[in-house]
Amino acid sequence: MSEPTLKIGLAGFGNVGAGVFKNLEKNRHLLRERTGCVLEIKRIAVRDPSRERSFPLPPGLVTTELSDLVDDPEISIIVELIGGTDRAFDLVKASLESGKAVVTGNKALLAERGHELFAIAEANGRPIHYEAAVAGGIPIIKAVQESLIGNHIQSVVGIINGTCNYILTRMSEAGLSYSDALGEAQQLGYAEADPALDVNGWDAAHKAIILASLSYGRWVPCEKIHVEGIESVRTEDITFAAKLGYAIKLLGVIQLHDESGSIEVRVQPSLIPANHILASVKGVYNAIMVRGDIVGNTLFYGSGAGQDPTSSSVIADIADAAMWTQPTRGAGLATHSLYGETLPISESVSKYYLRVEAEDRPGVLARIATVLGEFGIGILSVIQPEDHDEKYAAIVLMLHYAPYGIVSDALAAISNLDCVRSRPVLLRVEDLK
Amino acid sequence: MSEPTLKIGLAGFGNVGAGVFKNLEKNRHLLRERTGCVLEIKRIAVRDPSRERSFPLPPGLVTTELSDLVDDPEISIIVELIGGTDRAFDLVKASLESGKAVVTGNKALLAERGHELFAIAEANGRPIHYEAAVAGGIPIIKAVQESLIGNHIQSVVGIINGTCNYILTRMSEAGLSYSDALGEAQQLGYAEADPALDVNGWDAAHKAIILASLSYGRWVPCEKIHVEGIESVRTEDITFAAKLGYAIKLLGVIQLHDESGSIEVRVQPSLIPANHILASVKGVYNAIMVRGDIVGNTLFYGSGAGQDPTSSSVIADIADAAMWTQPTRGAGLATHSLYGETLPISESVSKYYLRVEAEDRPGVLARIATVLGEFGIGILSVIQPEDHDEKYAAIVLMLHYAPYGIVSDALAAISNLDCVRSRPVLLRVEDLK
Repeated sequence: MSEPTLKIGLAGFGNVGAGVFKNLEKNRHLLRERTGCVLEIKRIAVRDPSRERSFPLPPGLVTTELSDLVDDPEISIIVELIGGTDRAFDLVKASLESGKAVVTGNKALLAERGHELFAIAEANGRPIHYEAAVAGGIPIIKAVQESLIGNHIQSVVGIINGTCNYILTRMSEAGLSYSDALGEAQQLGYAEADPALDVNGWDAAHKAIILASLSYGRWVPCEKIHVEGIESVRTEDITFAAKLGYAIKLLGVIQLHDESGSIEVRVQPSLIPANHILASVKGVYNAIMVRGDIVGNTLFYGSGAGQDPTSSSVIADIADAAMWTQPTRGAGLATHSLYGETLPISESVSKYYLRVEAEDRPGVLARIATVLGEFGIGILSVIQPEDHDEKYAAIVLMLHYAPYGIVSDALAAISNLDCVRSRPVLLRVEDLK
Repeated sequence: MSEPTLKIGLAGFGNVGAGVFKNLEKNRHLLRERTGCVLEIKRIAVRDPSRERSFPLPPGLVTTELSDLVDDPEISIIVELIGGTDRAFDLVKASLESGKAVVTGNKALLAERGHELFAIAEANGRPIHYEAAVAGGIPIIKAVQESLIGNHIQSVVGIINGTCNYILTRMSEAGLSYSDALGEAQQLGYAEADPALDVNGWDAAHKAIILASLSYGRWVPCEKIHVEGIESVRTEDITFAAKLGYAIKLLGVIQLHDESGSIEVRVQPSLIPANHILASVKGVYNAIMVRGDIVGNTLFYGSGAGQDPTSSSVIADIADAAMWTQPTRGAGLATHSLYGETLPISESVSKYYLRVEAEDRPGVLARIATVLGEFGIGILSVIQPEDHDEKYAAIVLMLHYAPYGIVSDALAAISNLDCVRSRPVLLRVEDLK
């Protein structure tokens, strides 16, 4: 194969860094088919190679010097996952100045020093990709930057801190106190040992600043935005809000004021209508509603943190950077044959809802059940509604897992029973994971 | 300014075509800032220029010959919005062979002849963009193709036909019969005069085929997929399903079977749990849940049809094609100053939730209300819960629209009342459009 190989320098091998390495390896084949490139991590820089890690450092690739990545002319993409804003700033700057593309998931770095870094990127004609910096696995950066490019963004309203959303969800659903819910989040590994940046709203604020810059073409300084955390929210507030028809969520909000053209950026715990789609975002999930002047409301939902979801975004950025350095493939369809054949519907297995209209007399259900039994189809439950016309009644059955082909044959046999009025209605019960 | 000008040939000026023209014009300035290009529609081909249109044909640009677009060497992007699969196929083919990028919203064309067209695109090294072909304004194509590029797609479950979702929503919420709900959808312009392709599932099937091809790298022939419409669903099925804890939605489903590697593609009305986020997708909205092996569940929600939302996707594709032909800008931040200043939080206006813990004696509410009145803040409602400790009780007030600065001052004054125990809790009530 003559695919070009893209060499990557990975800085940082914490939770997300290890996820990037692991998943690039796991889906290596797929990525080669889809990008037309081989994506290879050539070098990994860590501060302390001897530290114990849940995912072991791959031998032979490790260095303790960031300059070993930056100075390597073979490396064309630097992935910055070391965190912090000082060494990370120097690394990104040096990488761009060496002509490398940069991928980063560092929201604090961009929120605080993005204005400097993007100027350096522009001066050097090299891109900074940062999908992982906002809302983990949700592709919100690309959505705003590329998919909604034709829209004036009128507002962005996001649940963009999973820890806070988990805490508020548990306070709401289990009636936990704030401190018990926080303790639970820490125990489950959702909240840091020092959860201050999460619960005081500043993690969300960094993300809101990035979304605002993307939407409005300029960096809003941290001191110009209003940030409140969830520390003052009590379980009784959630209860009172529910009585009034609202849910409480920590929201990052950016908003364009049409008349003045001014923009508003803030993070606050807020009441939203309980039947709004954002209110159905529970636990550690994130969701961001973006309103554009052309597209109207759009919403993007998914895992806002975690090793695997966040590494999905980093890998997408690496693939984008690879396309940038090797613009040989375009927006076509990467045809390949990694997957098998199309499954015939007859072999597709699920549970079913079956409604039969039959004569309203004893023994009818038994006859239907007998047919189902002959085909080996189990019955989960039966409803026989009381309302019906004089002679015919509906019988609703929930059927156990069975291949569609068999259920289909059973259906034909049931249709042929003389006590059945018309063709029964069969609906699939979808297994949603 | 030295921005390059990209000349576009627009084929078709129906609902979506007119929307593309109108919105490219409306947000011209923004698009120039963001793309670094001037996007100019040079020529518009229509079959019948004399036909009456809700948006008038722009004078001077019109031709009745598609070849006037294809043969114009200045035109680098062809936007195909003529529909159908014969003339549209010839147009796309000729455009790619003339070295032009193609943008299309034609789902039937791609579902039926995508395998031919993408081969032509690859042979000519020119891209086909088709964001508008699936789910209108929702950027699901780019999400699957680029943002989730590192993932094996395990399943895609989508509400991808707005007409059917509108009908099912009205049957569910207003108890309408199928035919009354369909009639209403037609009256509101959601359903075509001949709604057959919508209600029989084939519109959704075309979209499912495109999503399957994108996910699995190959075109699934129409005859290999199972398609059922919603014609057989009766209002009583929705009622029975609700009793069992389910909602009924028309779903397009594609699914990878891990063991065999085989893929399943089908469109069916299905029961889904009533508390699932997909069940909260109402009316003409669309939503697509994509499950990747790395990212987990993601969901994309928005308007699945309509002039403006669909044109938002076409414009994004045009911008992508422009970047392709002029790869001068990258994934940076298009800094510009189209928008005004950051609004100080003190001027931000909303309604509020206010909880005050105060002494439990007559006259306390009056004193709080007096302070609010002095600051000119209206009270929408008051709850005084009965549970409280001996001496102190919570009072919850919903406050009318007011600037945060004033509410903040009022809050300080209320805190200072001697009957108030601790700092009151103030939460914003978010206006979600």
